Amino acid sequence: MIVVRSIKKMQALSRKLASEGKKIGLVPTMGFLHEGHLSLIKRAAKHSDAVITTIFVNPTQFGPNEDLNKYPRDEKGDLRKIKQAGGDIVFIPKATDIYPGDFQTYVAVEGITKTLEGAHRPTHFRGVTTIVAKLFNTTRPDVAVFGLKDYQQAMVLKQMARDLDYPIKIIVAPTVREKDGLAMSSRNKYFNPEQRKQAVCLYKALQRARTLVKNHRMTKTTVLSRAMGQIIRTICRTAEIDYIAFTDFESLRPVKKVKKNCICSLAIRLFGVRLIDNMKMM
Amino acid sequence: MIVVRSIKKMQALSRKLASEGKKIGLVPTMGFLHEGHLSLIKRAAKHSDAVITTIFVNPTQFGPNEDLNKYPRDEKGDLRKIKQAGGDIVFIPKATDIYPGDFQTYVAVEGITKTLEGAHRPTHFRGVTTIVAKLFNTTRPDVAVFGLKDYQQAMVLKQMARDLDYPIKIIVAPTVREKDGLAMSSRNKYFNPEQRKQAVCLYKALQRARTLVKNHRMTKTTVLSRAMGQIIRTICRTAEIDYIAFTDFESLRPVKKVKKNCICSLAIRLFGVRLIDNMKMM
Repeated sequence: MIVVRSIKKMQALSRKLASEGKKIGLVPTMGFLHEGHLSLIKRAAKHSDAVITTIFVNPTQFGPNEDLNKYPRDEKGDLRKIKQAGGDIVFIPKATDIYPGDFQTYVAVEGITKTLEGAHRPTHFRGVTTIVAKLFNTTRPDVAVFGLKDYQQAMVLKQMARDLDYPIKIIVAPTVREKDGLAMSSRNKYFNPEQRKQAVCLYKALQRARTLVKNHRMTKTTVLSRAMGQIIRTICRTAEIDYIAFTDFESLRPVKKVKKNCICSLAIRLFGVRLIDNMKMM
Repeated sequence: MIVVRSIKKMQALSRKLASEGKKIGLVPTMGFLHEGHLSLIKRAAKHSDAVITTIFVNPTQFGPNEDLNKYPRDEKGDLRKIKQAGGDIVFIPKATDIYPGDFQTYVAVEGITKTLEGAHRPTHFRGVTTIVAKLFNTTRPDVAVFGLKDYQQAMVLKQMARDLDYPIKIIVAPTVREKDGLAMSSRNKYFNPEQRKQAVCLYKALQRARTLVKNHRMTKTTVLSRAMGQIIRTICRTAEIDYIAFTDFESLRPVKKVKKNCICSLAIRLFGVRLIDNMKMM
């Protein structure tokens, strides 16, 4: 496995791979990898000859009061896991190379970044699309794989790739969950064991909503949100709900009644940690 | 010479060229080509194996009261000229393919777009950087050539390419001028012969400023601007000056005294047509 830390060297390596007719798969991450990330690497390997995993805790996608400085890191562990998962190349750029002093260019998707996460984290997606555009330009992948756990992010990146004519296939891979259903996330490590138990409330609430839809054909989203709020507060008394939203999967527009392709997304603050999750309702 | 009108076909052709080890040169234009454009094509040919010239009158870089609808077009003439200049491929995308109905992604350079042209045309550079990013992604050139006549545009695109890690060399080629010194521009065709004569006032003013700097070591920019204003009004009584600015060539920051690397840029409205030009002062 090759570890590359310079942008120029990464560009040269990608160019070499392309000239050899090799298909490149890209998996951008912020490191501290879990099974969810590894599933993306395995998925990328199915669609390419060389998988580039990137590790970069991207400052521009964190808000001023978010957890940039305490975001967990473990490069050594990450490299071991990537190798086991079948990764070929790991790109670990320096923050000062990615954002030099006179950096002043941003890539921004408008419409679909204004709802859900975007409404609560106003500069978040601009940071995400800018770093991913930079990684696209540096690695020139044929396919790039993102996780459905960050559902809106995946849709925003698909829109960006389409709008800017990147000749890159965007694959959105399913969420990987812990045994109890909690979506895997690097942020789960912030919890102590008791808190960790209560973090299952997001999944339980989503499951409850889907059961209501399936069994009782209850499709009014206000009713479903209310039931979800109850479950969340029952499992975790101190949980704060940022939002529970029912939207069309493709357009991200809110729906009043659950219908085909409806997805429920939610963001909850638990013990000072903000978690997100989502589930297709129909 | 190959003419390509589909984005997908252009992407496939670029990929094929790259896989054959060919270096690609890109010259983006809005068509209605003159000697200035052709000099860019010839320059690109020196640095590449295949020159792609693009013709696209880009709506997003025109302001609401600008000349988008009357911008001159002559595809047949353009194709003949590109062939004579040694172009290999011409990419002529449709506006509805470049900006489909749900288009919502923009590439924007911040700091250096706020002065000069950017101060007078607030959405102009966002339109330029977005279309050029799209063309970069579609054609994946090794070098791209832009004219110094649009000096700020060239500097903004250099900044964009650097900030977004495009592995593309940006070449800025010198301004080509008519016999009397008027910078070549597709907009010059808006003038009748009498108006055309008076349009030389931009060049004469720039020349006068440089002569003052050279002969008299007069370097105060307020004094130079005043002298330039006088010349412009003497040659064209009805000319309106948008701006006359002296800036550092690299940083685009205004300077009070002409020193090394100082460039004078100006924008003038003549008979309803807005012209720009520039000249290095030292």
